[in-house]
Amino acid sequence: MAAYKDMSREELSALKQELEQEFKKVKSKKLKLDMSRGKPSAEQLNLSMGMMDVLRSDSDLICEEGVDCRNYGVLDGIREAKQLLADMMEVPKDNIIIFGNSSLNVMYDTISRAMTHGIMGSTPWAKLDKVKFLCPVPGYDRHFAITEHFEIEMINVPMTSEGPDMDLVEKLVAEDDAIKGIWCVPKYSNPQGITYSDETVHRFACLKPAAEDFRIYWDNAYGIHHLYEDKQDYLIEILMECKKAGNPDMVYKFSSTSKISFPGSGIAAIAASDANLAEIRKQMQVQTIGHDKVNQLRHARFFKDIHGMVEHMKKHADIMRPKFDAVLETLEEELEGLEIGSWIAPRGGYFISFDAMEGCAKAIVEKAKEAGLVMTGAGATFPYGKDPKDSNIRIAPSYPTLEELKEAVKIFVLSVKLVSIDKLLG
Amino acid sequence: MAAYKDMSREELSALKQELEQEFKKVKSKKLKLDMSRGKPSAEQLNLSMGMMDVLRSDSDLICEEGVDCRNYGVLDGIREAKQLLADMMEVPKDNIIIFGNSSLNVMYDTISRAMTHGIMGSTPWAKLDKVKFLCPVPGYDRHFAITEHFEIEMINVPMTSEGPDMDLVEKLVAEDDAIKGIWCVPKYSNPQGITYSDETVHRFACLKPAAEDFRIYWDNAYGIHHLYEDKQDYLIEILMECKKAGNPDMVYKFSSTSKISFPGSGIAAIAASDANLAEIRKQMQVQTIGHDKVNQLRHARFFKDIHGMVEHMKKHADIMRPKFDAVLETLEEELEGLEIGSWIAPRGGYFISFDAMEGCAKAIVEKAKEAGLVMTGAGATFPYGKDPKDSNIRIAPSYPTLEELKEAVKIFVLSVKLVSIDKLLG
Repeated sequence: MAAYKDMSREELSALKQELEQEFKKVKSKKLKLDMSRGKPSAEQLNLSMGMMDVLRSDSDLICEEGVDCRNYGVLDGIREAKQLLADMMEVPKDNIIIFGNSSLNVMYDTISRAMTHGIMGSTPWAKLDKVKFLCPVPGYDRHFAITEHFEIEMINVPMTSEGPDMDLVEKLVAEDDAIKGIWCVPKYSNPQGITYSDETVHRFACLKPAAEDFRIYWDNAYGIHHLYEDKQDYLIEILMECKKAGNPDMVYKFSSTSKISFPGSGIAAIAASDANLAEIRKQMQVQTIGHDKVNQLRHARFFKDIHGMVEHMKKHADIMRPKFDAVLETLEEELEGLEIGSWIAPRGGYFISFDAMEGCAKAIVEKAKEAGLVMTGAGATFPYGKDPKDSNIRIAPSYPTLEELKEAVKIFVLSVKLVSIDKLLG
Repeated sequence: MAAYKDMSREELSALKQELEQEFKKVKSKKLKLDMSRGKPSAEQLNLSMGMMDVLRSDSDLICEEGVDCRNYGVLDGIREAKQLLADMMEVPKDNIIIFGNSSLNVMYDTISRAMTHGIMGSTPWAKLDKVKFLCPVPGYDRHFAITEHFEIEMINVPMTSEGPDMDLVEKLVAEDDAIKGIWCVPKYSNPQGITYSDETVHRFACLKPAAEDFRIYWDNAYGIHHLYEDKQDYLIEILMECKKAGNPDMVYKFSSTSKISFPGSGIAAIAASDANLAEIRKQMQVQTIGHDKVNQLRHARFFKDIHGMVEHMKKHADIMRPKFDAVLETLEEELEGLEIGSWIAPRGGYFISFDAMEGCAKAIVEKAKEAGLVMTGAGATFPYGKDPKDSNIRIAPSYPTLEELKEAVKIFVLSVKLVSIDKLLG
């Protein structure tokens, strides 16, 4: 197909009329479709329903260390849950703490603790004039919301196909001791589905930050969330890489079972060096008597071990794969060659990232909404909700059914075309 | 029996020898007893095991607002859980937010939020030179640990039989705007089992604090934790009382089901004015996508309603009552009239507070430990772990079996006697 930019005004106008007819037709269906958030579908949730039967009124609820999981005790996670999540996060089980239901909450608390107490003896950030974070963009809106909430200045770092622009990251952290952290989703990144290359991870581990309390906030949310059995990304384990590079304390790793068992009813964890964990435990014993051990036990007994979890994720993949394929096929069929947008075909995770022509993203999301399709707000993938090019749109294919999704992508593609023509017609 | 102080040195010495023989005998049993924490016993935990069967793999997990509890969504609690905990906390269900498993965590987060963001527009506490809290003593060690963690200066306020000394509270909060809060366990208080009188609650509601961001931290942990059906304490509902007094925003109420269902696997809540809750929700949506709704649903369906919960608490009372009675009977039989200690017989809650002769508490706890009995550390009931009179000891009768408890109290009483004689002999 011809690129839109090479078409005459007359051709574009004619095409516009045609597409508007199509759009009218779809709009008249009064659909209600949602591709806005990375929510698992009901079908995926059903995969974990067996978990409801694992613990029964006649079950023994004693965990491996001999503690009754129904009562107080065990601050940082029962042994079997630690083993399971440590294997999932590819770290030794002594380098992990199990929390409640949400890794986002753990990240928030990690920043909040740094604000009030600093990190390993550093000045509490609340006492500093300026604290800054690096934010690879496009990225995860809820990360940016945390740093914005604490009035931490966010600096955009462009993503490349290998991860964040490391030349820039190295330069910035070395020269500015107000830079205290960087948000990373290193595998099947949100929203692009990019996995950081070996070199990128290695360069992260070798960073020489000016700030002693600089940490890499490594949110490995999609570590085992592959789409394909034969095409999988591999990510170097950052904790060990940092240790080898002589920077053992430089990283906090976060993960959870939110998109493995149940979002909101899973278990979350942090992995870090002994020194980092010792500090976290110290604060944790003031904050809580302990997290929900019954739910930890439920998870450990349901999945049994990491192999069980990996097998479970194949079932998720079987549900997700056709949805991603449907989106990608339609994008290719309908937009390939038109030069009005680009995207990356990810091998895992929850999102497809779409880059429209500059200045078109907001209008596309608006247009899609007219026809009943809710997308993630344009700009959401950037700090402060400001995409400087107004170009990036996050597509979340997981929640709708396959049938709904096909309708949704049609609306999306139509919206992209119509807005792009308007842009070209000026 | 004669008061020890009226006995001659010879009589005391003879008695001491006798008691030491007894102590030796108990010690030789090499018992391992624990009266240190307010932990429910296994028998109590068994009362809630039916909860494990409430949600099964074939259950419908849709809550009243039509949301699938297995997925993301519903930030501040599902409707049925709100209703249940609102009834438990005696507030309208619109004035409640449901959290995760621990009210202590909610209290910590409330203080932490005030540190970094202030309260309803006030200066963040972290930016102030000095922040102070009033601490009724004796009180709950984990409250004091939170304020100590944030370097908030704690000021002791003596408890009376009607609650904190309100003359002092009124005076202090009116004259010092650095005083930002007061920790309260208003019903069956920890450790004394005192319930604040109507007048005390009314005076709380009418406080005129110098600080606009002063709040009453009202930890109603034992609101329905009665020991007797025929002797129950009543507590005026503080939220309404504050509203009537024209101070609607002055109180945060906290509670949880920790000692109703399972400690560590229950659900917690905060109740407060609309304005307070709006601010909390604003921060909450940055901190988390939502708490564990499956567990909320499990609780709501198991208890059904507040009547179900009250009936459930009667079963707890049936287990707790004989334990409290056993401790109180032994204290009376063995110590009445000796003038070496005093205590209050509570009508609910988890503790009995014992006041030894001045300067004896630490030694008594040490002595008991010699014979294998672990008590709460002396001093724990005071800020910074410092009981100025070294007198108060918290007795937690819930966890041991009745048989163990009888042994434990014997050791305790022997330790009190021996240490008191040493004190009198000088």
